[in-house]
Amino acid sequence: MSEPNSFDRFARQWLPLLEAEMRSQLAHPDAVVAQHYQMMHYHMGWVDESFRPGAFGTGKRIRPLLCLLACAAVGGDPALALPAASAVEILHNFSLIHDDIEDGDETRRHRPTVWKVWGVPQAINAGDGMFALAFAALLSSRGWGVAEGALVAALTRFAACCAALTEGQHLDLRFEQEESVSVADYLRMIEGKTASLVAASLSIGALLGGASRECDNALYRFGLHIGLAFQIRDDILGIWGDPAVTGKAAGNDILRRKKSLPLLYALEEPTVSQQLMRRLGEPLAESDLPGLLNLLAAANAQAFAEDAVRTHHQQGLTALQEALGAAALCSPLGVLADDLLLRQA
Amino acid sequence: MSEPNSFDRFARQWLPLLEAEMRSQLAHPDAVVAQHYQMMHYHMGWVDESFRPGAFGTGKRIRPLLCLLACAAVGGDPALALPAASAVEILHNFSLIHDDIEDGDETRRHRPTVWKVWGVPQAINAGDGMFALAFAALLSSRGWGVAEGALVAALTRFAACCAALTEGQHLDLRFEQEESVSVADYLRMIEGKTASLVAASLSIGALLGGASRECDNALYRFGLHIGLAFQIRDDILGIWGDPAVTGKAAGNDILRRKKSLPLLYALEEPTVSQQLMRRLGEPLAESDLPGLLNLLAAANAQAFAEDAVRTHHQQGLTALQEALGAAALCSPLGVLADDLLLRQA
Repeated sequence: MSEPNSFDRFARQWLPLLEAEMRSQLAHPDAVVAQHYQMMHYHMGWVDESFRPGAFGTGKRIRPLLCLLACAAVGGDPALALPAASAVEILHNFSLIHDDIEDGDETRRHRPTVWKVWGVPQAINAGDGMFALAFAALLSSRGWGVAEGALVAALTRFAACCAALTEGQHLDLRFEQEESVSVADYLRMIEGKTASLVAASLSIGALLGGASRECDNALYRFGLHIGLAFQIRDDILGIWGDPAVTGKAAGNDILRRKKSLPLLYALEEPTVSQQLMRRLGEPLAESDLPGLLNLLAAANAQAFAEDAVRTHHQQGLTALQEALGAAALCSPLGVLADDLLLRQA
Repeated sequence: MSEPNSFDRFARQWLPLLEAEMRSQLAHPDAVVAQHYQMMHYHMGWVDESFRPGAFGTGKRIRPLLCLLACAAVGGDPALALPAASAVEILHNFSLIHDDIEDGDETRRHRPTVWKVWGVPQAINAGDGMFALAFAALLSSRGWGVAEGALVAALTRFAACCAALTEGQHLDLRFEQEESVSVADYLRMIEGKTASLVAASLSIGALLGGASRECDNALYRFGLHIGLAFQIRDDILGIWGDPAVTGKAAGNDILRRKKSLPLLYALEEPTVSQQLMRRLGEPLAESDLPGLLNLLAAANAQAFAEDAVRTHHQQGLTALQEALGAAALCSPLGVLADDLLLRQA
């Protein structure tokens, strides 16, 4: 539809304020250490390699928007949650800087990664700086009239989420080296690496907005489920997505042997497991794709993954309703959950 | 003296409780991610490379002891500050894991560094995990009856200190590449990299112990000054320390061209600066040491550094007295400050 939905309208209203808040949280304290902060600004998409201002790719800022939306949904003023929303986006970007080093990725959003431009030591340290500044941003909510008890609860969620992120990344790095990975361990990995920050973003916004413990817990569960649904949908698109829409080659993730949910599920299916394992052990060309996709089809891998997305989406909506009542299903949070389920790229 | 001083007595009483608290803060939540936590245990000196328990070098745990002492000194129960003391030691150890990667150091405390055993990606991530768990540890003070306002103030100090640590490390990494570094920038670097965590350790213990804002600020300044005095003393010992006591070769830091305070000061002295610069630009052997030490002597570099140590020590004691009265000079905190000044290794 060409009419912007309620999530898009909310985003259009709050994104400029969020961006200004993040710039203020990442401002350098004095000229001596300016470069430390300018590397962060580069990664955030605000400056080029010579630190000249410009408009570069910034990501969609979904997590901070969820934080602001949750605050509004429980009856709080989203402006109260701007430092917290900055905190979750700064944390997300810290993790991307370190992921790029750990995975050896040389580009992100069509530009060289921080380590590629300034070297691994400074990039590790710039990431650490953002990690610290994410906590400082959340703590700066104190000046905005947030109750101290709510702030401590939000910080506790945030710290637990940071630990979960590193657990997820630990598993992701280990899985690359391991022969076989179980579906259960894979789900644990994406829960830590993706879903926990989506859930924490919602929880933190709700806590600062004055949510009850029950409402906060239900929104956290909503976040976990839509985070998992989002990631599994991503796995599906990586194999069966339309190249014209995703911008990636058909079957891309299969030919790269990426350990995503459909493949790991098929590898656990006794009927195809041995044959699939053998084929993945051989060199792969594009001509191997139909055969591999046939094996995935024989294992019902796509149906399993689509079903997982639907289940998590449904469980998420149930939690959202528990948190905020049936009307929430038509609120921007419900709209966003539906969009994530239906997305094609 | 063979009689243990009041600091040593305090340390002997509290170190086992501190160690137990840190083990509990770094316990793994389940078997799937055990290895992520076991790398941290290795770095803490609790297990070997195969994760078998043993007693390895652990460092002196000075920072957490300062945290506990500050809590006691303002009239609080040090047991209240055990999670906070764990937090500062865990944070310190996170920074060592990342420093070792950034500096390419292959050994620490006579064992291979974490990155040397498990590779750079897992080591970066294990450090990130400890960073997160340091905040989680401090937040767990909440369960111990600490007032929420005091906890938020302590967390604010902690987050600011984390950012300062990364600023100091940024400068340290940059200085290695730069031709000339000013004394002023060098002092900024060691303030961020060393003094800020010493100061924050004291401040956090004091805040949890119920210190007034004035007392907390004065203890923070005490910590900055003794942290700076400690680091400058280290710089002096690196050049003029007795090899029999320090365990390092005489003039070690000069022959390595290490940018420490005495050398940077001499390089700013017009009478020797050009000659010193020229000699440092040539290959250096042990036979060059007397000539280089003569240039440092002509610049009064040792006297300048000794004077800086004395000044910071004195300013530290003045701040300590402001915080806690004259009796504090004979308390374990005063004793520790004197020990740091007089140390020979």
